[in-house]
Amino acid sequence: MNTFGRIFRVTTYGESHGSGIGSIVDGCPFGLELTGEEIQIELDRRKPGKTCVETERKEPDQVEILSGIFEGKTLGTPISMLIRNVDVDSSKYEKLRDTPRPGHADLTWREKFGWIDWRGGGRASGRETVARVAAGAVAKKLLKKFGIEVIAYSKEIAGINIGEIEIKDVGKSQRIINASPVRTIDPRKGREMENAVLSAKNEKDSVGGVIEAIAVGVPTGLGEPIFDKLDADLAKALMSIPAVKGIEIGKGFELARMKGSEANDPLVIKNGKIQTKTNNCGGILGGISNGMPIILRVVIKPTSSIGKEQHTVDLRSMEETTIEIKGRHDPCIVPRAVPVVEAMISLVLADHSLISGFIPRKL
Amino acid sequence: MNTFGRIFRVTTYGESHGSGIGSIVDGCPFGLELTGEEIQIELDRRKPGKTCVETERKEPDQVEILSGIFEGKTLGTPISMLIRNVDVDSSKYEKLRDTPRPGHADLTWREKFGWIDWRGGGRASGRETVARVAAGAVAKKLLKKFGIEVIAYSKEIAGINIGEIEIKDVGKSQRIINASPVRTIDPRKGREMENAVLSAKNEKDSVGGVIEAIAVGVPTGLGEPIFDKLDADLAKALMSIPAVKGIEIGKGFELARMKGSEANDPLVIKNGKIQTKTNNCGGILGGISNGMPIILRVVIKPTSSIGKEQHTVDLRSMEETTIEIKGRHDPCIVPRAVPVVEAMISLVLADHSLISGFIPRKL
Amino acid sequence: MNTFGRIFRVTTYGESHGSGIGSIVDGCPFGLELTGEEIQIELDRRKPGKTCVETERKEPDQVEILSGIFEGKTLGTPISMLIRNVDVDSSKYEKLRDTPRPGHADLTWREKFGWIDWRGGGRASGRETVARVAAGAVAKKLLKKFGIEVIAYSKEIAGINIGEIEIKDVGKSQRIINASPVRTIDPRKGREMENAVLSAKNEKDSVGGVIEAIAVGVPTGLGEPIFDKLDADLAKALMSIPAVKGIEIGKGFELARMKGSEANDPLVIKNGKIQTKTNNCGGILGGISNGMPIILRVVIKPTSSIGKEQHTVDLRSMEETTIEIKGRHDPCIVPRAVPVVEAMISLVLADHSLISGFIPRKL
Amino acid sequence: MNTFGRIFRVTTYGESHGSGIGSIVDGCPFGLELTGEEIQIELDRRKPGKTCVETERKEPDQVEILSGIFEGKTLGTPISMLIRNVDVDSSKYEKLRDTPRPGHADLTWREKFGWIDWRGGGRASGRETVARVAAGAVAKKLLKKFGIEVIAYSKEIAGINIGEIEIKDVGKSQRIINASPVRTIDPRKGREMENAVLSAKNEKDSVGGVIEAIAVGVPTGLGEPIFDKLDADLAKALMSIPAVKGIEIGKGFELARMKGSEANDPLVIKNGKIQTKTNNCGGILGGISNGMPIILRVVIKPTSSIGKEQHTVDLRSMEETTIEIKGRHDPCIVPRAVPVVEAMISLVLADHSLISGFIPRKL
Repeated sequence: MNTFGRIFRVTTYGESHGSGIGSIVDGCPFGLELTGEEIQIELDRRKPGKTCVETERKEPDQVEILSGIFEGKTLGTPISMLIRNVDVDSSKYEKLRDTPRPGHADLTWREKFGWIDWRGGGRASGRETVARVAAGAVAKKLLKKFGIEVIAYSKEIAGINIGEIEIKDVGKSQRIINASPVRTIDPRKGREMENAVLSAKNEKDSVGGVIEAIAVGVPTGLGEPIFDKLDADLAKALMSIPAVKGIEIGKGFELARMKGSEANDPLVIKNGKIQTKTNNCGGILGGISNGMPIILRVVIKPTSSIGKEQHTVDLRSMEETTIEIKGRHDPCIVPRAVPVVEAMISLVLADHSLISGFIPRKL
Repeated sequence: MNTFGRIFRVTTYGESHGSGIGSIVDGCPFGLELTGEEIQIELDRRKPGKTCVETERKEPDQVEILSGIFEGKTLGTPISMLIRNVDVDSSKYEKLRDTPRPGHADLTWREKFGWIDWRGGGRASGRETVARVAAGAVAKKLLKKFGIEVIAYSKEIAGINIGEIEIKDVGKSQRIINASPVRTIDPRKGREMENAVLSAKNEKDSVGGVIEAIAVGVPTGLGEPIFDKLDADLAKALMSIPAVKGIEIGKGFELARMKGSEANDPLVIKNGKIQTKTNNCGGILGGISNGMPIILRVVIKPTSSIGKEQHTVDLRSMEETTIEIKGRHDPCIVPRAVPVVEAMISLVLADHSLISGFIPRKL
Repeated sequence: MNTFGRIFRVTTYGESHGSGIGSIVDGCPFGLELTGEEIQIELDRRKPGKTCVETERKEPDQVEILSGIFEGKTLGTPISMLIRNVDVDSSKYEKLRDTPRPGHADLTWREKFGWIDWRGGGRASGRETVARVAAGAVAKKLLKKFGIEVIAYSKEIAGINIGEIEIKDVGKSQRIINASPVRTIDPRKGREMENAVLSAKNEKDSVGGVIEAIAVGVPTGLGEPIFDKLDADLAKALMSIPAVKGIEIGKGFELARMKGSEANDPLVIKNGKIQTKTNNCGGILGGISNGMPIILRVVIKPTSSIGKEQHTVDLRSMEETTIEIKGRHDPCIVPRAVPVVEAMISLVLADHSLISGFIPRKL
Repeated sequence: MNTFGRIFRVTTYGESHGSGIGSIVDGCPFGLELTGEEIQIELDRRKPGKTCVETERKEPDQVEILSGIFEGKTLGTPISMLIRNVDVDSSKYEKLRDTPRPGHADLTWREKFGWIDWRGGGRASGRETVARVAAGAVAKKLLKKFGIEVIAYSKEIAGINIGEIEIKDVGKSQRIINASPVRTIDPRKGREMENAVLSAKNEKDSVGGVIEAIAVGVPTGLGEPIFDKLDADLAKALMSIPAVKGIEIGKGFELARMKGSEANDPLVIKNGKIQTKTNNCGGILGGISNGMPIILRVVIKPTSSIGKEQHTVDLRSMEETTIEIKGRHDPCIVPRAVPVVEAMISLVLADHSLISGFIPRKL
C-alpha cells in the first residue's frame, strides 16, 4: 500500500491539498552523514513553477526533518521528513467533483474508496511524488557512499529523441541535465523539446515521452530470485510512478526482433575482470546485477489534465457531458518525473544492497 | 525471494535437474472445487517436447497434490503441488561448469551465491516456471468462479506481428491458441512464425517476440495505491519471468508520441454503466482497475542457449574462450512462455481480488 | 522494524528529545468518521504528569493530523499524526552518555546501532509509545463501529492484586479505571497500590505489576494459522511494548498445573448459540477467536530508571562505576502502560478483522 | 499465514491425515554443509511412539529433501523437505465430525474456514509441528556454525518443577535431556513426572507443564526495534505453537513483584568485556540481545484430547451432548513440544542473525 521495500523501507502519506506530504525512511544504516540541505537539493530538482514548461503552482517544498538524524548522522531509526503544502487553491476543483477527468484516477479511486479527496486529485495527484524524491535523496546519499550513482534524463519528448548516448562522467552529465528545462542531456534537442511542449500548451494539449536511467557502480549480486529479482523490483517501483505505462531493461522491446546470437552479450576480460562486450541485457541477468551499468527506460504518458474539451460523464445525472480542465498543470510531466525515476531506482538499489549484504547495517 | 503475493501467496522451489519442482499456494479461499486434472491441463499447455519449435526434453510434468484439498474442495490451507523431474540429462552441462553461457544467469548466480547447481541452470532454468503454472492454475480456477478470465498469445515472433486483434470469445480464442504450435491467434501468421523459428533453429540460433495478454471481467477497484498499484504488481510479476525484459500496459510505449487529447480515454455511458470509449490505458488508471479489459504486453528475448559459437570466459584460467551449447533447447521460448504469462497475471489478480475484498476469504 | 501489521498497518517514528513523535496508519477503511479529538482523548489517558505516581515531565501531547481525513471521514489513505515534543530537558542525560543505565536499552542499542541518541533514551524511550496510542485510537474507533471493545487495567501493582474480576459494562468500567490514578478497577486496592508506588518513590526505587486486558464483541474466526495466529500476533504486539517481559492468554501459566478435564472449556448452548461454559482458553483456540471474550495478561517490569545507586560501567575507561539516575521518571510505569496495551491489542484486532474480511475495506 | 520469517523464511503445508507434511526453508545462505541425516536426527527427537508417555501412532517421519542441496551443500535456493504420512487411521475421527472436541480448534477452524479436514484435526493437528522441526534443524545447523546453540527441556510437568538450573555444557545437557522420556534435565524429577503422566493417562486425563529454553552464544545486537524486537518475534514464534498459552523472558512474571533495584541487572566487567551480574532480563534489553544467554519459558496446556467424558454440542441437532475421545493421544504433550520450542527459537535467531548481518548471506 503506502510502504515500499523490505529492509530499506519507505512509507509516504499526504494529499495534494491537505496539510502536507511526508516520507518516512526506515532501515537506513546508522552513521550516514546526512543533512536537510542534501534532501532539499533533490526536492528542488522536482519543484514546480521554475520554467515555462511547468505548472504555475508555486510550492516552496521545504523539508522539515522530524526524526532519525542526530548530530549530523543517521541514528538507524526512522527518518521522518515533512513537506507542508502551501500554495493550495482548491477552487478550480470544486466543479470537477462530479465530472471525472479522462485519463485521471478520479473515477477508479472513487469506485475503490467510495470517498475521495476531490481537491487537486488528493493522494492520486502527482504531488505525491515529492515524498518519493525526499526518500530517494536518502537512498542516493547512501548509495553514493558505496560507489553507486543513478542518473536519469528525458530520452524523448513529443517524439523528439536524443538517440543513443553514453554517460562518461555522472557529475558532469548531471549538471547538464539540471540546466535543461526539459531535463535532457542534448541541449539542441532540448530546445526542440521545449518548443514542442510550449506548442502543445498553446493548443491546450499535452505531450509525453520516455525517460532513460542509468545506474553505474552497481556491484554484481544484487537481486533476489525467483520473484524479487532486481529487474522485477525495479519494474514495480517504476510502474508505481503516476503516468508510467511501460518499462524496459537494456534493449527492451528491441530484443523481440533480435536473434540470440545478437542479443547475448559476449563475455570478455577487461583489466583482469570479467565484463560483457555489449550491454543488451542492461546490467541484469537472471534477475541479478552483473556489474555492468544498469540501463532502463520508462514511458511517461502525456499529462491527463488538458484545457481542451473532453468527453466525460456527470455522476449525478449519469449523463454524458464535456469538460475543460482549468487548474495549473504541466503540459509535459516528463522533466519533473526525471528525479522521481532516479528516486525510485535509488530506493530499490539501496534496499537490495542491504538485503544482499553489499551495504552493511552499521556504517 | 521465492514467495510472491500478500494474501494469495505462492512459494516455489526446485532445481532443473534436482528431484522435482514444487509450488505451495497459500491463502486460497476454502471451498473452491479443484482437482488435480485442472492443474494438469495448464501444466500440459506449458509442457515441452510437443512440437518442432520446442526443446526435445520430454518431461511428463505430472502433478501430485500433497495437501490443501479434501473431498474435492480446497481447505483454505496451503495447496502443495509437486512435479518430479524425470528426463534429466546433466552430461551436457558438465563442460559448461566453468564457461558461463552468454545471456544466461550462470555467472550472476555464481557471483551471488558462490555455489551453483550447474546442472541445466539449476534454479535459474526456465524449468522453474512449471511451478508458476501450477500455482496459476489454482488462481485461474478461483478467478473464473468470479467471472475473471485471462488469456495470452504470441503477438509477435521473429518480427512477424499479428497486428491489433480483439478477443470476443475467450473460450474460442483459447482453443485456437492452444492448437497453434507457436501459441498465436492468427493461424496464417502462425505458420510464418513457425517457419521463422525453424529457420533460426537450423542456423543454431534463436528468436524472441512479444506476448500480449488480456484479462476480461476484471471489476473496478483492484489495486492498492501508492506502491502496490495493480500495474506495479503486474509489472513485477511479469518481469520476474525468465527472459522478460520489458512490459507495457495499454498503449504502452506508443503513449510517448501521443497527445493528451488522443491518449485520454473519453468516458461514455453504455448500457447504463460508465465505460471508456477507447482503452489506451489498458484497463488501469491511477493503479486501479477501471472495469475495462486489462491489456498488456511483454517482450521475450531470444533464447540464450544457442548452438552457434559464442565468446565467453574460462573461469579457471580467466582467459577468453568460445562455447557452442549442445543440450536440448527451445529455439524460441515465446510459445512456452504464454501460459507462464497467464499464470503470473492470474496470481496478481487473485491476490488483489482477495486484498480488495472482491473475492471473499470463505466461498 | 518500525512498521506493524499486514492490512491495517502502523509506522511510527521519533526520538524522545527530538522534534516529535509520529504515527502513520495505513489501510484504515475509507469512510470512518474520525476527529482529532477522539485521538486526543486516548493520548490524554497516557499523558504524563497528571498524578503523583507519574513522571513530572509535562508534555501536552497535542496531536496534529497531517493527512488521511477529509470532511470528517477517513479517505482510505494513510492517516498521519504528529505529536511535537515540547518539555525537553536533555541536561540530565549528558552525564549518562557513557555510563549505560542498568535495565535500560542504552548499551544494546549502542552496540547494535553504533551511534545513539543519548538524550532521554532516544527512540528506546517509553515516550515512543505515544505513537502507538495515537494509532490505537484509530483502531479502537474502527473496532467499536463493528461492536468490538478493548479494555485494560492494572491487575497487580507491587504485589497488590485485585483478584478475579468480571467486566459487565465496558463503558462504566472504563470510567472507573480512568478515574483511578493507578488505572485499576478496584478503588480500595487502588489506594493500596498508590501507597506502594509512593513508598517506592520515596526509596528512590520502582515497582512493577501486571496488566489484564479484555476484548469483548470479538467474532469467531479472527486469526490466520499456522504462524499468524491471533494469539501469536497479540503476543508479538504486546511483547514489543517497552518493559513487557511476559504474556499469557486465558488461564496462561496456571494451565501448567491443571488437568485436561479442568482446562478444556466445555461447549454449551446459550440463547441458541454455541458458547463455552468456562473461558480458560481466553477466547482463542487453535489460534482463532471462538467468540468468547479475549482475556490476557502482561507483566510490566519495575521502571529501570531509579534514583538508587546502581552498578554500571564507564565506557570510556572501561571500569566499573556507580550511577544515580536523576531525570524525571515514573516510579511505576504500569498505569501509563494501560492505554498502550489497549492500543496494541486494538491494532492486532483491527488488522485481523480486515484480513479475515470481518471488517470490509469500504465502509 | 503459513510462512514465517523475513530473510530466513519457512513455509509449511500438510494435513495430519493427508499425503504428507512439508517445509520449505528459503533464505538459508549458500554453502552450508547439510545432510538429510542431520534433519532426521531432529525429527527423531520429536517422533511419536517411542515411550509410554506418548501417543501410539507410529510415524517413521522420514524426511525427503526435494531441493536446495547439491553436493552436500546448500545452494541458497529453497530447501524443500517432505515427510510422508504413513500410519493414518481416520476411523476414530468420523464420529467426531459433528461433535467438536472441547479445547480443540475443531469449532474455530470450522467457523473460520467453513470446511474442515475432520480427519485427525487436519492442519490444526500437533502433527503440523513436524514441519517446524525440519525447518528448525536447518536453522540449528546454521546457528551452530556461528557459535549459537539452543537447548530446551521440561521445566515442570504436572506441577513437578525442577527448580532453577544452570546449563554449563550444552552437548552434555542435550544428551541427558534426550535420554529422558519426559525430556527433562533432572533424572529424579523426571521419574516423578513420568509417574504423574502415566497416572493421568490411567484416569483418561492429561497434564501440562512448562518448557524452559536457553540460547547461548548469541551475540549482542540481534533484534529490530520498535516492533520486530527479538523478544517480540520470539513471543510470536512460540505462541504460534499449538498448546502454548503463555511466554515469559528472563524472570518474566516474577518481575511484577520485584523492585527496580532488584530487577535491573548490574553491569560489570568480566574478562575485559561488559556483562551483567545477574540475568533477570533473560538476555534481551530494549528488544535487542545483550550477549548474555537468552532464557525463556512457555506454558503448555494439558493435552485437549482426553478419554474422559466431556460436554460438547452436536452441530447437526444443535443440542448439548457428551463425548469420549478415543484415538491415540499423548497424555502429556510437553516432552514432544521440547524440540518444537527449540526449532521455533532457532528459526527466529537465524532470521535475526541474517537481518542484522551477524550471519552473512554467502558463507
